Amino acid sequence: MKIFTSSEYFDEQLYLESGRILEGYTLAYETYGELNRDKSNAIVVFHALTGSHHAAGKYEGDSKPGWWDGLIGDGKVIDTTKYFVICVNILGSCFGSSGPTSQTKKGQKPLRMKFPVITISDMINSQMNLFKRLGINKAYAVIGGSLGGMQALCVGIEHPEFTDRVIMLASTYATSPWAISFNKLAMEGIVKDTRFQDGNYKKEDFEDIGLNGFAIGRMAGHISFLSPKSMQKKFGRNYVETDGLYELFGRFQVERYMEYNGQNFAKRFDPLSYLYIIKAMNIFDASRNKDSLSASLKSIKAKMTLVSFRGDMLFMPSEMETIRDSLKDLGRGERVEYHCVDSSYGHDAFLVEYDKFDFYIRKALDG
Amino acid sequence: MKIFTSSEYFDEQLYLESGRILEGYTLAYETYGELNRDKSNAIVVFHALTGSHHAAGKYEGDSKPGWWDGLIGDGKVIDTTKYFVICVNILGSCFGSSGPTSQTKKGQKPLRMKFPVITISDMINSQMNLFKRLGINKAYAVIGGSLGGMQALCVGIEHPEFTDRVIMLASTYATSPWAISFNKLAMEGIVKDTRFQDGNYKKEDFEDIGLNGFAIGRMAGHISFLSPKSMQKKFGRNYVETDGLYELFGRFQVERYMEYNGQNFAKRFDPLSYLYIIKAMNIFDASRNKDSLSASLKSIKAKMTLVSFRGDMLFMPSEMETIRDSLKDLGRGERVEYHCVDSSYGHDAFLVEYDKFDFYIRKALDG
Repeated sequence: MKIFTSSEYFDEQLYLESGRILEGYTLAYETYGELNRDKSNAIVVFHALTGSHHAAGKYEGDSKPGWWDGLIGDGKVIDTTKYFVICVNILGSCFGSSGPTSQTKKGQKPLRMKFPVITISDMINSQMNLFKRLGINKAYAVIGGSLGGMQALCVGIEHPEFTDRVIMLASTYATSPWAISFNKLAMEGIVKDTRFQDGNYKKEDFEDIGLNGFAIGRMAGHISFLSPKSMQKKFGRNYVETDGLYELFGRFQVERYMEYNGQNFAKRFDPLSYLYIIKAMNIFDASRNKDSLSASLKSIKAKMTLVSFRGDMLFMPSEMETIRDSLKDLGRGERVEYHCVDSSYGHDAFLVEYDKFDFYIRKALDG
Repeated sequence: MKIFTSSEYFDEQLYLESGRILEGYTLAYETYGELNRDKSNAIVVFHALTGSHHAAGKYEGDSKPGWWDGLIGDGKVIDTTKYFVICVNILGSCFGSSGPTSQTKKGQKPLRMKFPVITISDMINSQMNLFKRLGINKAYAVIGGSLGGMQALCVGIEHPEFTDRVIMLASTYATSPWAISFNKLAMEGIVKDTRFQDGNYKKEDFEDIGLNGFAIGRMAGHISFLSPKSMQKKFGRNYVETDGLYELFGRFQVERYMEYNGQNFAKRFDPLSYLYIIKAMNIFDASRNKDSLSASLKSIKAKMTLVSFRGDMLFMPSEMETIRDSLKDLGRGERVEYHCVDSSYGHDAFLVEYDKFDFYIRKALDG
């Protein structure tokens, strides 16, 4: 499988849901496989909160492949010998697409805290411009988990002609106050960190360590990505053994896990991008601007495949079931397929336990 | 009902579970009702993480009564015309009993970060010394919720002759990694706050605002005290209306709730005390020093009343059920009563929805 990495600059205004305008923007993206002659074999993959366009394959010298390599590749469920797969770094992120700390209009300085609020709809609108430029007027399917699932749902609702197949995993139709409250910890952690300096930090100032408040916020995220059961299984009440000699009531393994993941993440991700993306997640509500969720879902033309995970503490199965039920009430029962996967990984399952759900994706693509 | 507030200084060594020794200590406590002639009508109430010995009644000029005023008082379930109720501020806390920022041995400076690690067993041992001094060799009942429930269970196991009735609510036999991970956010928040200064902060430095990192840690706590359902019911996706004019995608009500509670709490509670108490909570494991939970529970002689709350995200009903099942397996089925209360308040229910569980307490006391 060949990885093609690229980016496109759009020297045009993007009208945002907030009413503000982005004067120009860049989108970084990656593709795998070949676009066929009639450009009908494109599968759009949407990444989650902290993912990137690097969804599959390995760059030379890398030990780890892209974040959904288990699903995307030659002969895999999302078969790159058959499909042309494209994944775009979302607007607001920090991996090459325009965000608060990168360029928007060419020649302009990064907007930092003056970067406008971005919504899921805005992310999708920008990506639609890229697909158009690439000649893709219709995708064979769109698919995403978590924040990626929100994007997939948004396409189904707001661009109903764009695809016949929408696949969303571990996601929701509207971010719950429970999920918002986890994001709140990250917002507070970042904004109140003295080194954040109202968004005017220099990356060099904390390159080696990351913002502490950001690390704490990310630790909060990791609680919501796991679950009471998955933590029990993974860590129990085990202590970190190497500390045994030094500390009588030492650190628990679950504490070390959180430290490690929080701190490492704070080094590699940009705090302002994180703020803007969790804000977009918080704002997401598929029923906004409509009378009801039902009124929104009504415009969907694609066949919907919904996969939730039992024990997902961030976006609970009941939220996906609301989408299914709402579609059923609209008489679309035959156009929606719902599966709740038994998993002990919690929300993280959609990035881990491929063998428990990949056949649902296969079915959605073959059907 | 008369409130009697007092404190006792113990000019003696307290041998701690860690092997360290507290050279002296003070315990603040409150009592309601009268101790009868044979001192057989005492009910010991244990407070939770951030509670105090002020469990019931109002001080002159106060608008709010003690934290369990709904249960304790003349004619109430814990009837102060009948019982002598006592509640002791736990060791490590900051409301009058010895802790990291107060005096231990008379004339000694506060130990701050040199204060020894305290366990639930240590808290109980110190309280036992107070009860002895007051002439109470046996309590009619002991009762507590959350961290107070751990104390109640500890009495049942480690001081089996002290009472015939142990009542524990919204608690567990061992703190789960899930609960530990919420506490971890508070630990990191406090310790990494630059104004914490390795525990050598001056309260004056942040009297008006509180430590930011502490506020964030407390917000994390509030997530675990509520639940997805209770948040949905309480806040939904509602925005703070007063912000409407100023911010397009404004603050959610759940965000304001967290800010308010986190910040206010950080002003009124001591960060070092919080660190020491959540450490004690993390360490709590009723099966420690024994081969199994069963081996620990075996020593219990009291009748056990266990009350859990459906939707408690901190100490789940399944954890209380483990205690019940373990007691049943020991052939103590008739000496244990378990109730899971339907509530939409999550963990907080034991401080709120009295009418949903007070009859279980009445039954335990009358039985």
